[in-house]
Amino acid sequence: MQFTYSDRMANLNGTATREIFKLLSRPEIISFAGGLPAAEALPTTAVQEICNDVLGGENAQKILQYGTTEGYLPLVDQMTELVREFGINGINRSNVLIISGGQQGIDLMCKCLLDKGDTVLVENPTYLAVLQILQSYEARAVGVQAAPDGIDVADMEEKIKKHRPKFIYLVPTFSNPTGKTYSAENRRKIAELSAKYALPVLEDDPYGRLRFSGEKVNALYSFAKENNVVYITSMSKILSPGLRVGAAVGNADVIRKMAICKQGADLHTSLLAQAVTAEYLRRGLLAPAVQKSLPLYRTRKEAMMRAIRAYMPDEFEHTDPNGGLFVWGELKRCNIDTAALLPRAVERNVAYIQGSVFYADGGGKNTLRLNYSNAQPDRIETGIKALGEFFKEIIAKERR
Amino acid sequence: MQFTYSDRMANLNGTATREIFKLLSRPEIISFAGGLPAAEALPTTAVQEICNDVLGGENAQKILQYGTTEGYLPLVDQMTELVREFGINGINRSNVLIISGGQQGIDLMCKCLLDKGDTVLVENPTYLAVLQILQSYEARAVGVQAAPDGIDVADMEEKIKKHRPKFIYLVPTFSNPTGKTYSAENRRKIAELSAKYALPVLEDDPYGRLRFSGEKVNALYSFAKENNVVYITSMSKILSPGLRVGAAVGNADVIRKMAICKQGADLHTSLLAQAVTAEYLRRGLLAPAVQKSLPLYRTRKEAMMRAIRAYMPDEFEHTDPNGGLFVWGELKRCNIDTAALLPRAVERNVAYIQGSVFYADGGGKNTLRLNYSNAQPDRIETGIKALGEFFKEIIAKERR
Repeated sequence: MQFTYSDRMANLNGTATREIFKLLSRPEIISFAGGLPAAEALPTTAVQEICNDVLGGENAQKILQYGTTEGYLPLVDQMTELVREFGINGINRSNVLIISGGQQGIDLMCKCLLDKGDTVLVENPTYLAVLQILQSYEARAVGVQAAPDGIDVADMEEKIKKHRPKFIYLVPTFSNPTGKTYSAENRRKIAELSAKYALPVLEDDPYGRLRFSGEKVNALYSFAKENNVVYITSMSKILSPGLRVGAAVGNADVIRKMAICKQGADLHTSLLAQAVTAEYLRRGLLAPAVQKSLPLYRTRKEAMMRAIRAYMPDEFEHTDPNGGLFVWGELKRCNIDTAALLPRAVERNVAYIQGSVFYADGGGKNTLRLNYSNAQPDRIETGIKALGEFFKEIIAKERR
Repeated sequence: MQFTYSDRMANLNGTATREIFKLLSRPEIISFAGGLPAAEALPTTAVQEICNDVLGGENAQKILQYGTTEGYLPLVDQMTELVREFGINGINRSNVLIISGGQQGIDLMCKCLLDKGDTVLVENPTYLAVLQILQSYEARAVGVQAAPDGIDVADMEEKIKKHRPKFIYLVPTFSNPTGKTYSAENRRKIAELSAKYALPVLEDDPYGRLRFSGEKVNALYSFAKENNVVYITSMSKILSPGLRVGAAVGNADVIRKMAICKQGADLHTSLLAQAVTAEYLRRGLLAPAVQKSLPLYRTRKEAMMRAIRAYMPDEFEHTDPNGGLFVWGELKRCNIDTAALLPRAVERNVAYIQGSVFYADGGGKNTLRLNYSNAQPDRIETGIKALGEFFKEIIAKERR
C-alpha cells in the first residue's frame, strides 16, 4: 500500500548529513565531509570502567528503570556546573533539560516556538541540519549576512523588522560550517538587539571547549540580560557522540515547555548514557581529556593549512579556525560549482561537503566545508593534494 | 523575557505520565499509577558484563562515535529475527528502524503522516501519551468503541467513512490501559477493513512477550496482506526502559520516511544502548530472562485479583489480563469521579490513574487503571485494601 505523507515530508529528503555518513564508511575515501570528533579522543577505557562501576553500584536498578523527562539528577547538577566555563551562572535545576544530543535541543526549541509558515533567522551559512529541521516544521529560514567577527547586526535588525522571526539560531563559537568565532563585542550587540525586539536566541555550542588557540569568549547567553537565550551544550565532540547526551539551558518557563515536548518525543534520554556522562564529569575526567585531545586537533588543522597552501589553487580562500572541526573555503574568481563536482572528487577518493547546503536561501555555489578532526595529518595532506589538483584542473579547463 | 509559544503548546500540559513519575518517587505511596516493569527483572549484572565486553571489544570506538540514523547493524539484524516470534517474516534491514523507545516510534509515525487538523483513530480508551503526541501535531483523536475481543469493527468502519483518518493506532496485545488482547479473528477483520480503506495501522506492541497465561496471538502486522501496518516493538518492558531502545518495522518506504524524521529529531539512538541490546539478544539472554520474570508478573497480577475480590466494592468491575502490566477497572452503578478522588486517595498513600485521561473524547469518569508489575504482593494487598475501603466509604456517603 502507498502511504500518503504529511506536507512536511514533501521537501525532506534526508540527503545531507545522513548520506554523508554512508560515504564515510568506504575506507579508500579520504573524507573531509563529516563532522566526527577524533576517534583517538574517544575514551573507551574510561567509559568501560564507569559502566562497570555505575552498573555495579547502588543506582544500577535506577539506571535501567524509567526516569524523569527532565534528566538524571546527578547529570543535571553536573551540567549546571559545566556551563559556568562560559560565563553561565546563577542557574538551577529548573533551568536545565537533558537532551539526547544537541540536535534534539534544536528540534525541541522549534517544536515549542514554531507554527507553519513562521520565520527563523540563521547565519548564512549555517548548520545544515537546522535547515532540515525548520523544513520539518514547515518554517522558513532567512539568512543573516556574516561579518568577519560574527554576524552583520545591521542586517540582523533589518531582517527582524522585515520578517518578524520567531527566533534566531546561531553557532557563535567555532561555527559550523565556517569555523569562525563571534567576538565579545558582536555577542553583546546581538544580545542587545535581540532584547530590543524580544527575539529569542538559540545558541548552539557543541565546539566551544575544542579551542587550541586564541582567547576564550563567554557564551552569548552570558551577555543577554533579558534571559531570552536558550543555550545548548553537547557531549558529542568532547566525550562521545555515540552516547547522545547534551543539555539545554534557559529560563525555567521555556525549559519546562521543551521538557513537555521531549516527553512526547522520547520520554527521556537513555539513562545509561546519562549516568556514564554524569560520572565522567563527577570524576573530573573531562577537562584533562579535552586538554589532551587539543594538540591532536591543532596538529590536524595545521596539516590542513599547510596542505591548502601547498596544493590548493590561488583562487581558494579559506578560514583558519582557533578550534572546532571545520575549515570553510571559497573558490573565488572562477566558475566552480562544488555540488556538481563532488561526485568527481569522490571518484578521486576525496570528499567534502558542498557549501550551498549550508545556505538558507541559495548561494554558496563556489564554497565548501572541510573537516580536519577525523583524519591523520598524512591522510589530510594526500586528500587536500588530490582535491587541490582536481580544482586546478577544472579551473585550467575552464580558462582554456 | 516572555516567550511566545507555538499553537501546539496551548493544549500540552504534560500532566499525565510525567507528573505520575514524580509521585512514584515518594516511598510511602503505594503506586498503581505507573507503568514500570518489575525492578527485580532488570538485568543489571548482565548489562554490566555486556558493557564491559563491548567497550573492551573491537567495536568500542565505533560505539562511542557517530552512527547511522537507521540503527546499529547488529541490532537491526537482531530485531529482524526478534519479531518473527509474532509471525512477522520476510523482512530485511530496509524494513527496520531502530528507535529511542517505542514512544519515539509513535512520534515519528505522526511526523510522517499528520498535518494540522488531521484525524487519527484510536481505541477508546487508549495509551494516554498517544493523545498528547497527537495534540502536539494539532491532530484530532477519534475513539473507536472497544469490543470484548478487540475493537468494534463496525464502529471502526463507520468512523473511517465519517472522519477519513490518516491512520489508526492500536495496542492489540495486553493493551494499555485495559490489559485486553484482541482475538485473532478481530485482528483479521481489522486487517481487512484497513486494507479496504487503504488506512495505515500503527500497531504498538511493548507488552506482547509478557504473557503468563493464555495462548499467543500473532501480530496484527502478520494478518495484513497490504503491508499497511507499522509495528513497534520495544525493549522497555522486557530488558530495560532506561536504555530507550525499540524498533519500528514496516514497508521500506514508510521506514525510510521515519528515518528522515528521526535524523532531525536525535540523529540516532544511543549507540551504547543499541550495542548492549544487540549483544543481549545475540547471547540469547532475552527469552530465559523473560521466562524467569513471568512468574513474578503472574504472582503480582494474582495478588491484585485476590485483593480486588476481597476489598473492592461490588460496583468495581475489572479486567483479568493474561499478561502485560495493567488491570482496568470501572465503578458501575454509582456516581464516582476517579479524577476528583485521586488526591484524596494519595492522602491515604495509594495512587492509580484516573481512566478519563485515556479517552479520546471524554468519558471514563468512573474508570481507573491499576498497574501491578512494580509492587510486591503484600504491598499490592495493602494498597488495594486502602483503595477499596476508600471507594466503599465514598459510595456509602453518596447513598446516605
